[in-house]
Amino acid sequence: MHSWVDGQPADTLSLKDRGLAYGDGLFETIAVKAGQPLLLERHLARLAEGCLRLAITADHSLIRSELLAYAAALGEGVLKLILTRGDSQRGYAADPAAQARRILQGSPPATYPTAHAEQGIRLFPCATRLSEQPLLAGLKHLNRLEQVLARSEWRDAEHAEGLMCDAGGRLIEGVFSNLFLVAEGRLLTPDLSRCGVAGVMRAEIVFQAKSLGIPVEIADIGLDQLRQADEVFVCNSVYGIWPVRACADLSWSVGPLTRKLQGISRALLDV
Amino acid sequence: MHSWVDGQPADTLSLKDRGLAYGDGLFETIAVKAGQPLLLERHLARLAEGCLRLAITADHSLIRSELLAYAAALGEGVLKLILTRGDSQRGYAADPAAQARRILQGSPPATYPTAHAEQGIRLFPCATRLSEQPLLAGLKHLNRLEQVLARSEWRDAEHAEGLMCDAGGRLIEGVFSNLFLVAEGRLLTPDLSRCGVAGVMRAEIVFQAKSLGIPVEIADIGLDQLRQADEVFVCNSVYGIWPVRACADLSWSVGPLTRKLQGISRALLDV
Repeated sequence: MHSWVDGQPADTLSLKDRGLAYGDGLFETIAVKAGQPLLLERHLARLAEGCLRLAITADHSLIRSELLAYAAALGEGVLKLILTRGDSQRGYAADPAAQARRILQGSPPATYPTAHAEQGIRLFPCATRLSEQPLLAGLKHLNRLEQVLARSEWRDAEHAEGLMCDAGGRLIEGVFSNLFLVAEGRLLTPDLSRCGVAGVMRAEIVFQAKSLGIPVEIADIGLDQLRQADEVFVCNSVYGIWPVRACADLSWSVGPLTRKLQGISRALLDV
Repeated sequence: MHSWVDGQPADTLSLKDRGLAYGDGLFETIAVKAGQPLLLERHLARLAEGCLRLAITADHSLIRSELLAYAAALGEGVLKLILTRGDSQRGYAADPAAQARRILQGSPPATYPTAHAEQGIRLFPCATRLSEQPLLAGLKHLNRLEQVLARSEWRDAEHAEGLMCDAGGRLIEGVFSNLFLVAEGRLLTPDLSRCGVAGVMRAEIVFQAKSLGIPVEIADIGLDQLRQADEVFVCNSVYGIWPVRACADLSWSVGPLTRKLQGISRALLDV
């Protein structure tokens, strides 16, 4: 299916776009089933927060209607929305009145081995550390060189994801996932106020767990806590939940809370 | 003048380009006079180092010949080279065999008020801090949201540049310039091993100063040293050197070493 730029079919972009020049924009990767963009409200909420924090002016009702129309045309697959600050001349200064450019791209459904979800995965311990930048932390912005570097650290099929820490050695996230631990019946996920992407599925899992009366803690998490965790899993809004069975010399069993939340995430992603 | 993409005239770029998706690439902004790209060897050296550190495969002799041909056609102005890791499908993983995409863009000569170079400028003290990422420090890569945020902090014409510090309060650079201090006859410029862009004009000034027997120190620099500096200036490879006469409540006179190096930078940029 053709991509759309500002609502029109297109395969190319202006060379003056600030998304290219500076990574000056945001993106969302959205699962589409039966013509519906899944977890749409959470994606739109994160995008709106990103626009607010980066002072990007966008027509959010137009974004919503375009996402719905594009998903309807795509049917099944993955929809990627890139929102940039549009064109500009040379220099970092942006026109404060500029309207964001909307880019929609469709791809076929993600095809991960079913074993990832069923038997669990092995995490590659990435040496690439995430830098601390509270002004950008949590946002799914277009400055993603750290993820590119981390993802280049392994090529084997044995590792389905990588584990990224910050410079202080705190566990933060996967390269394209968020991280959860289960310890003493509580659900733990790293605080993302200094770095990391606050994933839509992460937010949904925190919400669902709380609804089930499961204590949830968002905090700094160190390697010791990973070592002592009863269960470990990663998540994102496309594949749902993958149990983690190993990382370097550590290993875990796939536990009951992981399976329970995985069931919920499956229901959310299989409309 | 038309832009070139991989040697062909073009105004648009593939939507699958990783420069757009992740800021996965590098750039150089090069002054062009009389059909010549200025400080070309230093620009090419930084670009090559960036390719090495990001594992971007590029044909550097082709880049050189295209830069020369484009500059000859541009005549006078500013040439921007963007080098991206090319297209890819969804996901951070890159094809290690991918060849970099070359984008050349031309713009008219930069038109800054002559007072900037003559009377000196006022620096805006930016609240946006640079994050520490040794893997990217020094490179002119496409992840530039921190600069976009910093540049958005002021809009008045009174401030020609901004001063950026790291999270620890060390002085690092301007938003689009490097920073130098003069103290007790020595030239000081911030160490850029944790963050910052290692500018081509900065490298040239360090080289020229050493050739003149002026002691040069590359080190961590704090606010106290700025306060006590005899002279302060910023530089880049397009405008050369601007003396700094003020930043917040601090002020300096335009001093003799600044003028001497400014003369050298002018000679380098006025072929």
